[in-house]
Amino acid sequence: MSPNLSDIGEFGLIARICDKFGRLPDEVCGIGDDCAVIPMNDRFDMLITVDSIYEGIDFDLRFSSPFHIGKKALAINLSDIAAMGGIPKYFLVSIALPLDSDLDFVEGIYSGISDVARESGAALVGGDTSSSEKEISISITAIGEVEKGRAILRKGARPGDPIFISGAVGLSALGLAALKMGTSSGMEPFIERHLSPLHRTDLGRTLLKLGCVTSMIDVSDGLLADLGHIARSSGVGFEIDVNRIPAGDDFRMASAAIGVDPRELLLAGGEDFELVFTADSGRIHQSLASLEALGVAEIGRVLDDPGVRSVLNAEDLVARGIGRGYDHFLKERNCRKEPG
Amino acid sequence: MSPNLSDIGEFGLIARICDKFGRLPDEVCGIGDDCAVIPMNDRFDMLITVDSIYEGIDFDLRFSSPFHIGKKALAINLSDIAAMGGIPKYFLVSIALPLDSDLDFVEGIYSGISDVARESGAALVGGDTSSSEKEISISITAIGEVEKGRAILRKGARPGDPIFISGAVGLSALGLAALKMGTSSGMEPFIERHLSPLHRTDLGRTLLKLGCVTSMIDVSDGLLADLGHIARSSGVGFEIDVNRIPAGDDFRMASAAIGVDPRELLLAGGEDFELVFTADSGRIHQSLASLEALGVAEIGRVLDDPGVRSVLNAEDLVARGIGRGYDHFLKERNCRKEPG
Repeated sequence: MSPNLSDIGEFGLIARICDKFGRLPDEVCGIGDDCAVIPMNDRFDMLITVDSIYEGIDFDLRFSSPFHIGKKALAINLSDIAAMGGIPKYFLVSIALPLDSDLDFVEGIYSGISDVARESGAALVGGDTSSSEKEISISITAIGEVEKGRAILRKGARPGDPIFISGAVGLSALGLAALKMGTSSGMEPFIERHLSPLHRTDLGRTLLKLGCVTSMIDVSDGLLADLGHIARSSGVGFEIDVNRIPAGDDFRMASAAIGVDPRELLLAGGEDFELVFTADSGRIHQSLASLEALGVAEIGRVLDDPGVRSVLNAEDLVARGIGRGYDHFLKERNCRKEPG
Repeated sequence: MSPNLSDIGEFGLIARICDKFGRLPDEVCGIGDDCAVIPMNDRFDMLITVDSIYEGIDFDLRFSSPFHIGKKALAINLSDIAAMGGIPKYFLVSIALPLDSDLDFVEGIYSGISDVARESGAALVGGDTSSSEKEISISITAIGEVEKGRAILRKGARPGDPIFISGAVGLSALGLAALKMGTSSGMEPFIERHLSPLHRTDLGRTLLKLGCVTSMIDVSDGLLADLGHIARSSGVGFEIDVNRIPAGDDFRMASAAIGVDPRELLLAGGEDFELVFTADSGRIHQSLASLEALGVAEIGRVLDDPGVRSVLNAEDLVARGIGRGYDHFLKERNCRKEPG
């Protein structure tokens, strides 16, 4: 019997696809990165990315309003542009909707998209609309630009580089857990983070301009998993300390209230869309004060040995397999992002 | 009660979306055209388009092999680039698959995509993969380039311009009708056209180089409906003669065999992905011999009055509403593209 998708997983499938299509044209880089990077003109490269969200997989109509759904659909794509240090410019929306969809509902989705578009400066330039049998799906293609040759890839981390994270992670996963348990008291900020994802495009630009960031990714699968993507692309290992990952008292108390180890949320919680990056250790230290002002924290360092992925003060969790990240096809390994 | 999508239809929804997002940035043209046209460098503009296909709506697993599905997913996007006179360059694939999908099946889809990519020279540069509850959906974003300022839009048709069509239309609809009736004897070429759509990117380039094509579109919704898109964008009317639309004896006989008026297939059959275009009447006549060699036929002319959409020798069909084209949301107006 032929194996099926849940035998090889999402990353197994991606590896097979890459084999089938062979190597990229010489001028393109970034397949398997947050965006593809394509030469555009003497000054800029184009960044392009696509991300889709599906009802029952990526959002749940019991929790998300149409406005939330629209915001999420665009924000997750802008986050990919942020992770390369790019400027969002344009996007296209491909949407499938059941025939009996209420028009107010559909307009709510587009209001959410429009809200994120307006504050980011990205312009809708095309798309397509289709009917679906039952469920809503939205696929957005986002296009950005970045100074020629300067896109920040996943593959540039070097042994000795310090590792940084922006803002706070684990909040979205805590918000989702609260929604699933039907608990909202005191959980509002985390629920809001889950339903209305960030995109750190302004911070991404600031980091690019520093000129010493060596690799970057956005936290979509979870900090450890995404740091793992950097490590694999760069051929390095890493060591971080869970105690250095920013976590407020309200976050710790809310985690305790629903009986979850906050360290697990910090390391494995997906969809915070903060930025994780590595930087040149000599040059970044001149910028540490401004990084701190930006809410960026140093949490560890890059190691030479690609076999080492060490998390101080969370060895027990890592031993239990925490933080391997979300795989759409490996059923037994995941909690669903949303209850189905 | 709020209206729903089937009250306003696909084009009603698109109009509301355009209202919500306001006008395009000055440098971009082509929203509502086959592709958006974005300035890239001194020599080229970028073309970008997205088109998605959904199981049960755009393909039926009883008829289409995974290889067919993959071919269709990419070809329909390359056809949009062809309709602007562009060169296909890159594409991204966003796919959703049920967890229990057989791996051979999934690889078949990618083989179909890869087949069309290879012959067209377009390179896969990114994408995403997701699980779905039940059905397969594939959203492809295609990127092309075209000489600066030379993209052929829908809006350039002028009164007096002759109207041309490439190849033959109605074949795909005939093939689909045969599949639905379970009739394949003698229907093989039409079924093949339905399952493995064309893209006329080479012809699109040839037409652009002629330098006198004033508007162009690909036949996806049906000849009359697509010519209607040109007329609306250009603010003109048109008159065509159904007897001038190429139709072979085999096509006429096969139509008769399944009891369908071949004129209806010619005027309203969707998904042939041939090119319909208008041209400067003075200059195109120098090229008529080469157009004939390319299998392009003159079928009518552009009229000044936007209220006139006349079809000689098919007045009876037009009076019955034939050729209004496919609308994903107006249930009562459509036959489904595929049985659901």
